[in-house]
Amino acid sequence: MTRRNAFYAQAGGVTAVINASACGVIETAKRHRDRIGRVYAGRNGIIGALREELIDTYRESPSTIAALRHTPAAAFGSCRYVLKDIDENPAQYHRLIEVFKAHNIGYFFYNGGNGSANTSLRISQISEKMGYPIQAIHIPKTIDNDLILTDNSPGFGSVAKYVAVSIEEASRDLAAMCETSTKVFILEVMGRNAGWIAAAGGLAARQQGDPPQIILFPEIPFDRDHFIDHVRRNVLKHGFCSIVAAEGIHYRNGTPLTSSLQTDDLSHRQLGGVAPTLASMIKHSLEYRYHWAVADYLQRSARHIASATDVEQSYAVGAAAVEYAIDGENAVMVTIERGKGKRYSWTLGKAPLGKVTNVEKPLPRHFISGDGYGITDSAREYLLPLIQGEDYPPYNNGIPVYARLKLQQVPKKIVAGFET
Amino acid sequence: MTRRNAFYAQAGGVTAVINASACGVIETAKRHRDRIGRVYAGRNGIIGALREELIDTYRESPSTIAALRHTPAAAFGSCRYVLKDIDENPAQYHRLIEVFKAHNIGYFFYNGGNGSANTSLRISQISEKMGYPIQAIHIPKTIDNDLILTDNSPGFGSVAKYVAVSIEEASRDLAAMCETSTKVFILEVMGRNAGWIAAAGGLAARQQGDPPQIILFPEIPFDRDHFIDHVRRNVLKHGFCSIVAAEGIHYRNGTPLTSSLQTDDLSHRQLGGVAPTLASMIKHSLEYRYHWAVADYLQRSARHIASATDVEQSYAVGAAAVEYAIDGENAVMVTIERGKGKRYSWTLGKAPLGKVTNVEKPLPRHFISGDGYGITDSAREYLLPLIQGEDYPPYNNGIPVYARLKLQQVPKKIVAGFET
Repeated sequence: MTRRNAFYAQAGGVTAVINASACGVIETAKRHRDRIGRVYAGRNGIIGALREELIDTYRESPSTIAALRHTPAAAFGSCRYVLKDIDENPAQYHRLIEVFKAHNIGYFFYNGGNGSANTSLRISQISEKMGYPIQAIHIPKTIDNDLILTDNSPGFGSVAKYVAVSIEEASRDLAAMCETSTKVFILEVMGRNAGWIAAAGGLAARQQGDPPQIILFPEIPFDRDHFIDHVRRNVLKHGFCSIVAAEGIHYRNGTPLTSSLQTDDLSHRQLGGVAPTLASMIKHSLEYRYHWAVADYLQRSARHIASATDVEQSYAVGAAAVEYAIDGENAVMVTIERGKGKRYSWTLGKAPLGKVTNVEKPLPRHFISGDGYGITDSAREYLLPLIQGEDYPPYNNGIPVYARLKLQQVPKKIVAGFET
Repeated sequence: MTRRNAFYAQAGGVTAVINASACGVIETAKRHRDRIGRVYAGRNGIIGALREELIDTYRESPSTIAALRHTPAAAFGSCRYVLKDIDENPAQYHRLIEVFKAHNIGYFFYNGGNGSANTSLRISQISEKMGYPIQAIHIPKTIDNDLILTDNSPGFGSVAKYVAVSIEEASRDLAAMCETSTKVFILEVMGRNAGWIAAAGGLAARQQGDPPQIILFPEIPFDRDHFIDHVRRNVLKHGFCSIVAAEGIHYRNGTPLTSSLQTDDLSHRQLGGVAPTLASMIKHSLEYRYHWAVADYLQRSARHIASATDVEQSYAVGAAAVEYAIDGENAVMVTIERGKGKRYSWTLGKAPLGKVTNVEKPLPRHFISGDGYGITDSAREYLLPLIQGEDYPPYNNGIPVYARLKLQQVPKKIVAGFET
């Protein structure tokens, strides 16, 4: 077999552990030097390929690459950029193949969510169509946990742990203050369409009546009167009410509780501000003192409180992608498969990309309690293994030591640029 | 000497480490059983004394008391409740003495900030006036770091570490996303009058140009045009701009950037919402995509990322309070004194309460850089030692194991209740 180079890129919203997958890809590729020449990382995802901005990851020291395992966010830059359909914009695909040819790239590893699974599929299709062989392997990543055919999506477990730990701690603050001051605390977490992240807040409640007493899911239409009544009951019973709210909650008619006018290129409404909106409803109806927090980026970059299970799985899916490529696989996503036993176990598998894309995994209704404000034992059983274990980064002078990369670019070989 | 009981209570906004002080008090008192009978904790601060709601801390197991060292928030409940002047409401003080007499309380330990230092002083005054001997010792605690005559206020170091780590992580998220999406991130932190907490965000910037590129201090009047221009310059230079904003920032004329109408009993304006306000200014002027987070309670309850130095000092000030009481001290606050050497060292001392109360320690101007948007080397030198070391709580099933107390109350001895 001839030796060919690999392209690796990171896509979409980042996570605390996506670099662990990068680490898995690079370290595993280096053990297959007979088959894989070098790993080039796209600067800012697929855009790096279009612009021929390729970072030579082999110019980084082995210790820097190893440090990726404990470094949050996307070390090579990410992008929110979706390729058009092949028929709609063939030039884009011709450009990609041109760049891949110029750099002898035969392996395409794309690390992302649904959108990038779709990109990976298209790359494998155009490769066949244009007669330039590329094996495209998708490496799953999304805090949204909405990829199907995999037990979970790497990145989710760490957000889940962050949210569970944070609401546990903040609820203790609230409980201590409630006698003379704050009676309601609201933590807003990510989750536009699915309540996976909000559900993780429920893990903090280990005994009956433990906070958070209310979780608001995008899956459950928001009913203001019912909500206010539930807050009141909890304050009367416990002295306080701790709430986790997904950013995407909305009324029965689909109107979001609040939304800014800002939209991004993917036509995602940029939400945020659900927590202060809920707080002002409570203030207006019940006159309770409140506090609210919006975790935003903190939740998905919090490598300092990452789940060890998540880190391990993230590394493993990266490593497996390389092994699958070496084995000749193409157009597949690496999957995590949960063992059948009582004790949590997992192995890796693969799923054809054609089956993965354009389908989102919803939070099952039986994971949400009857009243719509909590999680069930089934949810707990599914979620708990994903937040197991701590995997602390090294510290220096009180702050984590995260990787600083050289990000040295491979000299361009194509004269023409490309407008992205 | 006769054996007398001790009263201990927690006041004001809680911290990640105030319970470490409680642990220090209780464990140390137990080593002086010849002098201190039992330690009674006030349920919800001084209110517990007024209502005769005293928790017998000796009914908790030694392992529960030990676990207080790693448990955030106020385990016995806190309060926002300020005693009136003695002349204005003598009944309040008579009631306190009545309760202390009924339970043979001779030691008063109050764990809080400026307000509770004042309460401690009044207790020692009324004790003398009424001829019932009580030694009042104030144990410093406040995330605001505004107590004078002590190197720092226990609780601050852990918030500082949380803010530094969080902005480091979120800035990496931002840097990864900025090419095609978010260009500005704003983290709102606590700090009504002083920028100590916001300043701690500057510790994340270890090399020239590192984020956060902008810190907004309450000490520096907010100038919208200048700020917007600074954001623009940073985005042009670095591709993104990471911002830490204190909740208390205001315009030159004193108008806060935003404030809700909610006020608490202490006439503190309840702020919050600076981050979204700044975000909408940026959107309006520069059309950059943004993200914002409001840390709120998360920052002061984040025991999972507490500073080991802060934990150690918090325990030590609690322990010292008991030793000072045994030594006959009265009307003093335990202080932390910084050693003179290059390497950080500290010892404990004491300051007369009369000198401590009603004076707040401002962030020195020379801690803020010339342009008003960053911290200086002097600030760094002062702050860095306070966030040193990690002191992780134990975990079970992925979540920290924090103390659960029985909180058993001592039977009341006084028939009459008291309206608080």
